Amino acid sequence: MKVYVSGAATTKFGELWGVSPRHLARQAVFGALKDADTSENRVEALFVGNMLSGMLGGQEHLGAFFAEELGFTVPAFKVEGACASGGLALHNAVNSLMSGQYETVAVLGIEKMTDHKPEDVATALMGAGSEEERGAGATFPGLYAILARVHMKEFGTTEQELAAVAVKNHYHATLNPNAQFRNLITVEQVMRSSRIADPLKLLDCSPISDGASAVILSTKKKKGSIEIAASAVATDTLGLAQRKSLTEITATKNASQKAYKIAGVAASDMNVAEVHDCFTLAEVLAMEDLGFFKKGEAAGAIMRGETTVGKNGRVVVNTSGGLKGCGHPVGATGIKQIVELVDQLRGVGGERQVKGARIGLAHNVGGSGATAVVHILTR
Amino acid sequence: MKVYVSGAATTKFGELWGVSPRHLARQAVFGALKDADTSENRVEALFVGNMLSGMLGGQEHLGAFFAEELGFTVPAFKVEGACASGGLALHNAVNSLMSGQYETVAVLGIEKMTDHKPEDVATALMGAGSEEERGAGATFPGLYAILARVHMKEFGTTEQELAAVAVKNHYHATLNPNAQFRNLITVEQVMRSSRIADPLKLLDCSPISDGASAVILSTKKKKGSIEIAASAVATDTLGLAQRKSLTEITATKNASQKAYKIAGVAASDMNVAEVHDCFTLAEVLAMEDLGFFKKGEAAGAIMRGETTVGKNGRVVVNTSGGLKGCGHPVGATGIKQIVELVDQLRGVGGERQVKGARIGLAHNVGGSGATAVVHILTR
Repeated sequence: MKVYVSGAATTKFGELWGVSPRHLARQAVFGALKDADTSENRVEALFVGNMLSGMLGGQEHLGAFFAEELGFTVPAFKVEGACASGGLALHNAVNSLMSGQYETVAVLGIEKMTDHKPEDVATALMGAGSEEERGAGATFPGLYAILARVHMKEFGTTEQELAAVAVKNHYHATLNPNAQFRNLITVEQVMRSSRIADPLKLLDCSPISDGASAVILSTKKKKGSIEIAASAVATDTLGLAQRKSLTEITATKNASQKAYKIAGVAASDMNVAEVHDCFTLAEVLAMEDLGFFKKGEAAGAIMRGETTVGKNGRVVVNTSGGLKGCGHPVGATGIKQIVELVDQLRGVGGERQVKGARIGLAHNVGGSGATAVVHILTR
Repeated sequence: MKVYVSGAATTKFGELWGVSPRHLARQAVFGALKDADTSENRVEALFVGNMLSGMLGGQEHLGAFFAEELGFTVPAFKVEGACASGGLALHNAVNSLMSGQYETVAVLGIEKMTDHKPEDVATALMGAGSEEERGAGATFPGLYAILARVHMKEFGTTEQELAAVAVKNHYHATLNPNAQFRNLITVEQVMRSSRIADPLKLLDCSPISDGASAVILSTKKKKGSIEIAASAVATDTLGLAQRKSLTEITATKNASQKAYKIAGVAASDMNVAEVHDCFTLAEVLAMEDLGFFKKGEAAGAIMRGETTVGKNGRVVVNTSGGLKGCGHPVGATGIKQIVELVDQLRGVGGERQVKGARIGLAHNVGGSGATAVVHILTR
């Protein structure tokens, strides 16, 4: 059975002080329903991707919480897997449709992070890491800094090349009305920004954000439907110390290889991709582990503009602005990636449209790579 | 496609001070694998039902966490829906098998509650309720006490009849080596126990518990396999104040009617049932909303022993001891119910075996009834 995205919508991402999670959820889900031209009583189940509402807000049971808010009296689920919660919710939604249990479902990714003290957010985010990492006082910038150091040592990757990821994604974000950061930055600005966890600087890091994104999935194809040709998940150890390699995210490799096999395509077939650039180094790793570039060759290619929109590269990456430019409300990110791909594959990406895009990939990571989710979409 | 439980196991439930969640998970999952006679490299995905580890322990990302601990490098998911987390994880696992994405998966329900201050546990559990309830200082004993008062007023249900639920479930627990409370109690003892939220007394309430339960699901039938004939979920408003009725848990009614339809059976076909008796009143409501008894008739029937093992009633309820007698590690409960039904339907229930049991029902509730999950199992 085939599964299609029939509707997609996202709220603006950013510091949304004036709105509640309820409001964000309504805006995203009703936006997606409007886009799908489906009234809400057709939705047979709701899947919610969220990580932090329990730890930060004391509210769990989000499936029923948002089902009530949206006025749906339907089966509802919260799926959690750190920053991959959105992607994992989508994977379970896809499987539930393929099982024949449901015909039309809504998937909501949502996170409200700015209402809380930054130190509380940082502590809660470490819930994605291992006990040892948390106990040792590690933070995710610190963990990705370790990966960056190893990559630099192994392949000669430079801080300027990492900075180029942020520069590209900010450029793409200037073309996306829903992005958190719509200002151009330069490699020099990234290099001069405060060092967070050496070699990662402030402008190498994705921000703390609020936002919600939603898609309506259906087993019925209609005008504007985009097919989900593959949905695959892989895991690895929670902590970096137990990994076999620090120069790759093995879960990304495994999930993408599985997805390519399911969809019957190769990495080289992708026209457009939304990848998990929680830190600039993460996009470099993703480019390599997804098979877009050989190990050690991605950073230079990104710096040369080969993945920037309008440069006629093989694959254009993070047209939404990515996590760095568009923002990273953790549970929403995996669904926002799908919303962006749907726009691209429908050819309605506006100024950031990748010409002739026919096939796209979304890559969502939890923690420092313990979970990776890959979806392949085709028009 | 049909889905079978090929293996099932549970840890002892109780105050397990000496063991970690990691240990509990291994014991349950490897126990279930041994029971299924399946080696771990056959498990293609792991579904984890858990509610509180983020709020109480700061650890999220439990799918990858337990996948690593168990040595599985497979897709892994945490599904959360308060005390229905186990049942919801199972529902998603069943759908993932029916979709053809996986052939053999493990489902782990787990909760470690006693390591934390009781007041922290009570606060965290309110994450299952509505913001208004939490803000008003409501607790789940208080919310179920409201439902009990309404039921008593409407149908003349007595405190003694409620007490009889606890008496029955403690009796069943004495027959279950894995139960938390293996002592007989009397109606008088329940009546004399401290009032927690009038009319509910201490012995009307399920305890705070540690424990883990696991099942191995497969699309292949083999010796000892028990079929999951239906898996259905329904939701209602999070808060009591928004409900249309306080004399029923509408989500239970809706989920069970859907399950009966899928399985092609009626309530009267059930030989054995594990239902969500977080409070004694909850079992009375479940008996009625599942269609086992007419409204207002369940409490008397329970008191007359009609649902007690060995009394030749139509349906025997909570042979495990239920949440009251066996214990209620919230994320584990929905899976422990399945483990118990598997034993019953295989005819290996020992002293608590329901003679000739061929069809059983598991009923798992989140919060005060915002989520209900019903599974029907057949041999």
